[in-house]
Amino acid sequence: MGRLEEQLAFVTEAGRLRGVLRQTQLTDPDRRENSAEHSWQLAVMVLALGEHAPPGTDLARVTAMVLVHDLVEIDAGDLFVFAAAAEQARQETAERAAADRIFALLPAGQAEEFRGLWDEFEERRTREARFARALDRLAPMLANVAAGGGTWARYGITADQVLAKVTLIEEGSPDLGRYARDMVAKAVADGILAAG
Amino acid sequence: MGRLEEQLAFVTEAGRLRGVLRQTQLTDPDRRENSAEHSWQLAVMVLALGEHAPPGTDLARVTAMVLVHDLVEIDAGDLFVFAAAAEQARQETAERAAADRIFALLPAGQAEEFRGLWDEFEERRTREARFARALDRLAPMLANVAAGGGTWARYGITADQVLAKVTLIEEGSPDLGRYARDMVAKAVADGILAAG
Repeated sequence: MGRLEEQLAFVTEAGRLRGVLRQTQLTDPDRRENSAEHSWQLAVMVLALGEHAPPGTDLARVTAMVLVHDLVEIDAGDLFVFAAAAEQARQETAERAAADRIFALLPAGQAEEFRGLWDEFEERRTREARFARALDRLAPMLANVAAGGGTWARYGITADQVLAKVTLIEEGSPDLGRYARDMVAKAVADGILAAG
Repeated sequence: MGRLEEQLAFVTEAGRLRGVLRQTQLTDPDRRENSAEHSWQLAVMVLALGEHAPPGTDLARVTAMVLVHDLVEIDAGDLFVFAAAAEQARQETAERAAADRIFALLPAGQAEEFRGLWDEFEERRTREARFARALDRLAPMLANVAAGGGTWARYGITADQVLAKVTLIEEGSPDLGRYARDMVAKAVADGILAAG
């Protein structure tokens, strides 16, 4: 198989991400979100909110990272952000195996490059990865507010649990962290998120 | 409203693209594709196939372009690629009005920047726009081959009609154009696309 054929085999396999459903409930349209459209929304957020990243952040790299960050879910499925620790450990193992398989569809060189983007996102050590992760955490909060509760209401999530995730937003972008913290306070005041 | 609030209002409005259905029939999952996940797939294609763009192409700009190129469909809907000329003229007017409304949700400066990306994609005068358009034409061809006919079979499209669109791929990337031309020949040989 030539390079182009390998690249297209990867693109076709990646397309299966359209079939992975997330917990996030959309309101317009009224259905659950899939991970492909979620990844698209994060990339649009990089374009629209990029100025809130720390100075010097390579936004093209952040975009590449959010576009591929969920591909492992094709094999491993999506795990709810508030899942228990044991479940999260199992998920990590499954995701690593998925990354081994999926990125290896690409030609040599490119496979390592894409895998590097995924590892970087997971490890959260660069400002690019931390900003990408901040957007990944902010997006479902926006969806829950738009839905008047969403997964917060459905799973009885409290403000403390949400605020623990807001830390990840603050680490990626102080601006967005502040905004998210205010959102939580407002959601509690509006009665769409339980206090405590 | 502050800049961040305006940016988030745009992100929320953009999210409605998840509700715009395209003609493209997916096979895995088995349903019609929406324009948000289509835009995500094009952005993944920029990452995976970027080396087939002409030398000097600004791939970050291509990515930004494909991420926002379909937002006008939130108001104007998606038009089938083989629609009649009169319908295409009506669509263009509707899309321009949609662009006026949707990009204006962003803060001043950023609104013009995003609108510029959309205009550039539509006008196809830069190599970035021509490469973006090539991917936009290639993607449904891949889906039709994967579906064993897809919209070609459903609407009685012939090889000549498909080859007329392949010109747009060749203009954006000689490599991808060659590949697409071979794909058409193979689809005819395989009996999933009518000759003529």
